[in-house]
Amino acid sequence: MIVKEEFLKYLTQLQDRICSELENVDGKSRFIEDKWTREEGGGGVSRVISDGNVFEKGGVNISAVSGELPPAMQESFNVGPSHFFACGLSLVIHPKNPFVPTVHANWRFFELYNEEGVAIDKWFGGGSDLTPYYLFEEDGIHFHQTLKNAVTPFGEDLYEKYKRQCDEYFVNRHRGNEARGIGGIFYDYLRPGNREEEEKLFSFQQSNGNSFLNAYLPIVLKRKDLPYEAEHVKWQEIRRGRYVEFNLVHDRGTLFGLKTNGRIESILMSLPPRARWEYNHQPEPGSREAELLEYLKPRQWV
Amino acid sequence: MIVKEEFLKYLTQLQDRICSELENVDGKSRFIEDKWTREEGGGGVSRVISDGNVFEKGGVNISAVSGELPPAMQESFNVGPSHFFACGLSLVIHPKNPFVPTVHANWRFFELYNEEGVAIDKWFGGGSDLTPYYLFEEDGIHFHQTLKNAVTPFGEDLYEKYKRQCDEYFVNRHRGNEARGIGGIFYDYLRPGNREEEEKLFSFQQSNGNSFLNAYLPIVLKRKDLPYEAEHVKWQEIRRGRYVEFNLVHDRGTLFGLKTNGRIESILMSLPPRARWEYNHQPEPGSREAELLEYLKPRQWV
Repeated sequence: MIVKEEFLKYLTQLQDRICSELENVDGKSRFIEDKWTREEGGGGVSRVISDGNVFEKGGVNISAVSGELPPAMQESFNVGPSHFFACGLSLVIHPKNPFVPTVHANWRFFELYNEEGVAIDKWFGGGSDLTPYYLFEEDGIHFHQTLKNAVTPFGEDLYEKYKRQCDEYFVNRHRGNEARGIGGIFYDYLRPGNREEEEKLFSFQQSNGNSFLNAYLPIVLKRKDLPYEAEHVKWQEIRRGRYVEFNLVHDRGTLFGLKTNGRIESILMSLPPRARWEYNHQPEPGSREAELLEYLKPRQWV
Repeated sequence: MIVKEEFLKYLTQLQDRICSELENVDGKSRFIEDKWTREEGGGGVSRVISDGNVFEKGGVNISAVSGELPPAMQESFNVGPSHFFACGLSLVIHPKNPFVPTVHANWRFFELYNEEGVAIDKWFGGGSDLTPYYLFEEDGIHFHQTLKNAVTPFGEDLYEKYKRQCDEYFVNRHRGNEARGIGGIFYDYLRPGNREEEEKLFSFQQSNGNSFLNAYLPIVLKRKDLPYEAEHVKWQEIRRGRYVEFNLVHDRGTLFGLKTNGRIESILMSLPPRARWEYNHQPEPGSREAELLEYLKPRQWV
C-alpha cells in the first residue's frame, strides 16, 4: 500500500463522517462544500457550516498540495530547492451556545523530494485541543481521557508527551502565557524509519482521527441546550478575541499560510464568527468567568 | 529648548485637547484614564472611551519609555547594546454608527544613545489614516486635503510622498493587497541633521497633530446621526475583522510591542469592539458594500 494515498483516502472518509455527524447533531444547517485548486499544484475541499442550531461557524477542510517548496519553507526546513507533498484535514468548530467549547483538530502528512523526485524526508503531525468558555471539569476529563485512550496503544508515554507539547504550543505569550484553552494533544515531525513504522504511524493517525467525534460530541450533546444570557455570549466573544489573537499572532500554520500565498478563506476559516475586545476586561473575582482563567494553564486532566 | 521634552509636553496637551473634543461630540461617555509605569523605565497615560453615543470604543494614549534597547530592537536597528528613549501619542477611534469611519493616528519621537549616554541617532515618525465602512467621497477628500494642508508648508512634495508610504503600509497582503482603509499619510525615520532641522521637525509634528481634529471631526459630525440597520452593522463588523487582521498580522508597532513585553492593553486598544468573520463573504455586486472595496486601493484623493 502507498501510505500517502491511503492516508488521503482516509482523510476524505473522515471528513465525510465528521461532517455528517455534526449535521445530525445540528439538525438545521448543512455543510457547504467548496472545492478549490492551487495554481502551483493540488487543491482541497473545504466544508463549512454556519448559523446552525448548534454550530455557529465551523469548517472541516481537507487539502493535498504539492509543488516546489516555497523559499520561506526551504529556510524553515533547512533544505535547498525541493519538491513537496502535503495533505491534511483541519477542523475548527465554533458552537453557538457559550457553554459548548470550541474545538480544533488537524492530522497531516508531509513529504519532501529532491530534484530527482526521490523522497528525502517525510513526517506525520496532528492533534486536537479544546477551548471552553465556561468550564465543566468532567468535560475536560472526558476530552483528555478519550485522546489518551487513542494514543496509548502506540506508546505508554505518548499522551503525557503530546499533551505537554500541546500545552506548550497553544499559548498567548503576549497575554502572560495564558493558554488558548484546556489543551489536548499535539505532535509533529513523526518520521517513519521504515515501511513498518510508516504503516504504524498511519494507524496512529487513524486512531486519533477516529477518536475525534468520541472526544467532542458527548460534550456538545450535554451542553448544547443549557440556557444562557447575553452576558455569557459577551464573555464567549471576549474569549474568542483571544482565539483570534493566538491564531493571527502565534499559530505557525496560519502565519505560514498567509506568507506562502495559501488559500486565505480556508486558512482563516478557523477564526470565530464574532469576537470582542474591551479595554482591560477582567472578570469578577469568584465568577464562573474568573474560574475559567484558573484552568487556562497546564494541569493534569487524567 | 530641549526638543524631546517639548515634544512630550506637546503630546500631553494634544491628548487633553483631543479627548476633550471627542467627549464633547460624544455627549455621553467620558475617557477613563489609566496611568501605568514600565519596570524597565518610563510609562504612559492611556485614556479610553467606550459605549458612547458616538464612539463605541477608542483610546488616546501617550507613553514615554526608556531603558536598554531590547535585543529584538537592536537587531531591527542594526546596532549593538544601546539605550533608548521613545515617546508618542497613539489613537484609534471606533465609532458606533457604521457610516462614521474608524480613524488612527500616531506621532512619535525616538532617540538612541551609546553606552556613555551620548545621543547617536534620533528620528520622528507619525501619520493618520481613515478606515470607512461606507464610502462618502467628499469625506475622503476632506480628510486627505486636511492632511495635505498640514504638511505642505514643510515641503511641496511631502503629501504625495507620505501619502504613498501610507498606501504601501496599511495593506493586508494576505487579502490580495486590499488596503485597510483609504489611507492618509505615514512617515518615519525623519532624522534632523542639526538643531534647526530638529525644531522644524517638531513644528511639522505639531502641524500634523493639530490637524487631526480638523481632519476627522467634521466627518463624524456629518455622519453620526445617519440611520442604519443591522445589515450595516454586520458589514462594519466584517470590515473590522480586516482591521484586526492587519493589526495582528502586519502592523510593525503592534508586533513589536507583543514581542518586547509591551503593555498589552495599551497596544491592543487599537482592536475594534467587535469583529466578525464569515466564510468567503462577498458583498452583492453593485451594493454600497461592494462600492467600498473599489476604494480600498491607492487612488488620488486631492
